[in-house]
Amino acid sequence: MSQNAPDYAALEAFALELSAAAASAALPLFRLRDLSEINKGNASRADVDFDPVTEADKGAERAIRALINARYPEHGIIGEEYGSENTDADYIWVLDPVDGTRAFISGLPLWTTLIGLRYQGRPVLGVIAQPVLEEVYIGSPLGSRLITPKGSTPLAVRACSGLADAVIGTTDPHLYTGAEVEAYARLRTTAKLVRYGCDAYAFAMVAAGTMDIALETGLKPWDIEAIIPVIENAGGVVTNWHGQPVGPEAGQVLAAGSQALIDEALTHLRVAAD
Amino acid sequence: MSQNAPDYAALEAFALELSAAAASAALPLFRLRDLSEINKGNASRADVDFDPVTEADKGAERAIRALINARYPEHGIIGEEYGSENTDADYIWVLDPVDGTRAFISGLPLWTTLIGLRYQGRPVLGVIAQPVLEEVYIGSPLGSRLITPKGSTPLAVRACSGLADAVIGTTDPHLYTGAEVEAYARLRTTAKLVRYGCDAYAFAMVAAGTMDIALETGLKPWDIEAIIPVIENAGGVVTNWHGQPVGPEAGQVLAAGSQALIDEALTHLRVAAD
Repeated sequence: MSQNAPDYAALEAFALELSAAAASAALPLFRLRDLSEINKGNASRADVDFDPVTEADKGAERAIRALINARYPEHGIIGEEYGSENTDADYIWVLDPVDGTRAFISGLPLWTTLIGLRYQGRPVLGVIAQPVLEEVYIGSPLGSRLITPKGSTPLAVRACSGLADAVIGTTDPHLYTGAEVEAYARLRTTAKLVRYGCDAYAFAMVAAGTMDIALETGLKPWDIEAIIPVIENAGGVVTNWHGQPVGPEAGQVLAAGSQALIDEALTHLRVAAD
Repeated sequence: MSQNAPDYAALEAFALELSAAAASAALPLFRLRDLSEINKGNASRADVDFDPVTEADKGAERAIRALINARYPEHGIIGEEYGSENTDADYIWVLDPVDGTRAFISGLPLWTTLIGLRYQGRPVLGVIAQPVLEEVYIGSPLGSRLITPKGSTPLAVRACSGLADAVIGTTDPHLYTGAEVEAYARLRTTAKLVRYGCDAYAFAMVAAGTMDIALETGLKPWDIEAIIPVIENAGGVVTNWHGQPVGPEAGQVLAAGSQALIDEALTHLRVAAD
């Protein structure tokens, strides 16, 4: 195991390189109208069922993995598309090249590329990137900030007096099942405003202080590990629906601008915690 | 009444001016973190409850109205914020300066400025503008196109074999009430994919051919009149839930890439038509 403390400045710079490479792979496939043009350029694909979002996902993850393997061959990788390698390493990159595939399919520019880094088992660095908007939300022990072509802005959660004053984001109310249905309904009807359809982008809004709570169920590690350092280093809190740290199995996740807001949301959600 | 046919090229150019003026008024208030800075610059506001979205809405509509009154004083105006004037005119501008106020409040860049033009009672020209993305979807008898800083692209709906293969957009499933609840549930569970949280932007995606159906209930005229020419001139269809043209009272609205898809969706929705 490495005995040196992580060089977060270097790792952040590298994570931004990864994010740019993923964008180059995914963006040309977004809002693609004429699949025949692609098939024309690649005869071997002409008779297969070409799926732009699958190609974007896979192409972006291949681009990221190639860079990691070249720069940090000793690091591990867990990716949605191409599985796990070297998971005993001190450093493990956790990748969701296109989070929000339904947004991607629908032409909506709120899908994101998620790049997380675990160090000795803890998520320490994360990137939430939306290439159409040219936004990169990044967080590490160096702080959280939003990087755009116009510059870099610190990210900070906002104060919220309580659930009745909270703006909530979640992807789709119909993703909740069993006891979650009633738990979510109580949360929703207590909150000030709920917004759907955001996937990881809602968590970026919590870090940016324009939303107060984001929650999801059924998440995989690559859906959430990149998000945790962005929110925590912006002053927020991320837990599971028991109020504990999100484990490597992910699942039900809750993020908010403060522990008090987490506690209040859990009065509704805990009964449905797995 | 004017006896000349509308000069759509001039009216389109003017609508784009209106859209740029609205963006200048609304954008500075989007994702505003520190309200105290605004209050500092305006002592009269220091002790009132300053609401950025209301200010964006009102400021954008004032900017649009001033330009219309200066250039086309004989035209009528119907606006969400400042009411109606001169509604007997041949030309009536129908304005929603910030459609999707909940998205605006939440920091999500899918709110839009809607600028519609009625000529002799019919919606003939429309603009759906998203200033953060620098996208303007425009439609008139000259055609429909997407204008961005990179150029202009024709808009065209896509082919869709039927509801089971359709990507649907609607803002919030909890906006449906009464008989609409069951009707919407049947539509949703028949479709291939549903995406929430889009407001007018979902209709722009239908015109752009990345979604197949958009629907809403409880719309006001300014929520839909700008949209109709964008979709119709991209080859799509907009009706109410009876399958008739949307009337000046708006209400329940359905848009799709084809009449066949409208007909199939109406098999579920018509039972709940007002």
